[in-house]
Amino acid sequence: MNEIKLLEKILPGLQQDKSVFLGPGDDCAALDLGTGDLLLVAVDQLISSVHYDRSTSTAGAAGAKLLKRNLSDIAAMGGKANWALLALATNTDDDEYLLDFYKGLREAAEKFKISLCGGDFSSLPKGETGEVASLTILGTVERSLMCCRSGAQVGDLVFVTGALGNSYESGRHLTFEPRLAEGRFLAGNDYANAMIDISDGLLLDAQRLAKASNVGLMLDLENIPVNIDASLEQALGDGEDYELLFCVPADKAGILQEEWSFETALTSIGEIRENPPGEVISPNGEDLSKRFKKGYEH
Amino acid sequence: MNEIKLLEKILPGLQQDKSVFLGPGDDCAALDLGTGDLLLVAVDQLISSVHYDRSTSTAGAAGAKLLKRNLSDIAAMGGKANWALLALATNTDDDEYLLDFYKGLREAAEKFKISLCGGDFSSLPKGETGEVASLTILGTVERSLMCCRSGAQVGDLVFVTGALGNSYESGRHLTFEPRLAEGRFLAGNDYANAMIDISDGLLLDAQRLAKASNVGLMLDLENIPVNIDASLEQALGDGEDYELLFCVPADKAGILQEEWSFETALTSIGEIRENPPGEVISPNGEDLSKRFKKGYEH
Repeated sequence: MNEIKLLEKILPGLQQDKSVFLGPGDDCAALDLGTGDLLLVAVDQLISSVHYDRSTSTAGAAGAKLLKRNLSDIAAMGGKANWALLALATNTDDDEYLLDFYKGLREAAEKFKISLCGGDFSSLPKGETGEVASLTILGTVERSLMCCRSGAQVGDLVFVTGALGNSYESGRHLTFEPRLAEGRFLAGNDYANAMIDISDGLLLDAQRLAKASNVGLMLDLENIPVNIDASLEQALGDGEDYELLFCVPADKAGILQEEWSFETALTSIGEIRENPPGEVISPNGEDLSKRFKKGYEH
Repeated sequence: MNEIKLLEKILPGLQQDKSVFLGPGDDCAALDLGTGDLLLVAVDQLISSVHYDRSTSTAGAAGAKLLKRNLSDIAAMGGKANWALLALATNTDDDEYLLDFYKGLREAAEKFKISLCGGDFSSLPKGETGEVASLTILGTVERSLMCCRSGAQVGDLVFVTGALGNSYESGRHLTFEPRLAEGRFLAGNDYANAMIDISDGLLLDAQRLAKASNVGLMLDLENIPVNIDASLEQALGDGEDYELLFCVPADKAGILQEEWSFETALTSIGEIRENPPGEVISPNGEDLSKRFKKGYEH
């Protein structure tokens, strides 16, 4: 059973207290603690030989990636990230490696002003090598500004930050910058109706956004920003880009492009359509999930 | 490097924002979000062949244990638990096993009124069996009521709930009840100056509490409540009891014992002394860490 099928089985059965403003299924959950702002929470894992290779990544780069991929989830909600907790399981007796992992994590935390305020450390079963780490990120977002996956409206234009594809092989999955400032700008100025971070491939994450919003999504394949070392197929199907995919009302798209002052590229790549929920199509109506690899699952 | 040495290396280097009311090193961290109450956060792992055996535990019991051991951390702060996030890594293709794990977790969540509001699911490296799970628990506690490890005062009496030892072999590490109600009672009535949950063995956790409070701790070995199937050595050195160890001003100890209406046993087992910080001694002053196994690390 893959993650998608598992979640379909599990999520409907989970009971949420009324304090849960936004439950599982988005990039973060949002909790209403009775303050003005909502508390954003999310957890993401980083596992050696799955999310990085010890042969091509330093421990420090892996530690930094673990934080950054969680920050990308906060960015996709338009939130601010503040606190994190780490769980790490490993049998390694390579102290230098372990301390380098923490150093990478700590330096990334300092850069993004995250307080690493808790954690747990455990061994793995005997004989197992590598590391299994998970990080929980906590942040806040103003109630009126939060961007969910579910807010896309028919007629919205679809935008993406940066360029896509071949992130893992190129090493960009380690060096990427989470789009926190861009996410805040999009949420704070009410540009984005809906937003998601591209962690599992443009096509799959576009489907997720469209499904959550109960709409279809047209991707103009000629406009997808493809990394110079990647193919269109990779831009659609690879994971680990950690760019933002978002929907903007058509009458705001021009102002957004004028006001966009980030170095990060901003590209209009499609439109929200009245197709069946979750369907992602080409401009001529072709179901793209039939032509391209559907995304990255791990 | 074990967890204790690792933490000694790492914790001093972590920068905490002023919103972190209580940082790493206690059962939970406490965040000040500007509301009256503090937000409690903690993470704990559950790993097959480390924290449970597939041969003697159902998946459901393991899932429940993962939540309960986190609830025990909230109990030790005197808090209320509200929300949880799960990270699970496994290669299993045994869907029934996986769904049973979630069912056990979900049923425990319902029992304790916890909203499972987020999660992440990943594969392990190829060829690795078993499960690596971590759960982040979030709760709240009134600022004036929170119990830390660091509040013990010389002259306080030391109490423990329940009975100790042989938890793993007996299966009690799966069936235990987190002492949430007891923890709330102790915090709410201002009985406990300091509190910790016994997850790594009485002796080691007593040392932790004493060290955090900058005091010594006398354990009266004749009064330790030992499980009927356990030895004194096991009561001192085994882990996974998930009972509460706490310190009460001597003049409140009598009232506490009168007012204690829980079925859970309450036993006075020692006293806070002016010994070197973290030293745990017998009534005649013997350093107990020299005679007994120092605790359970995993």
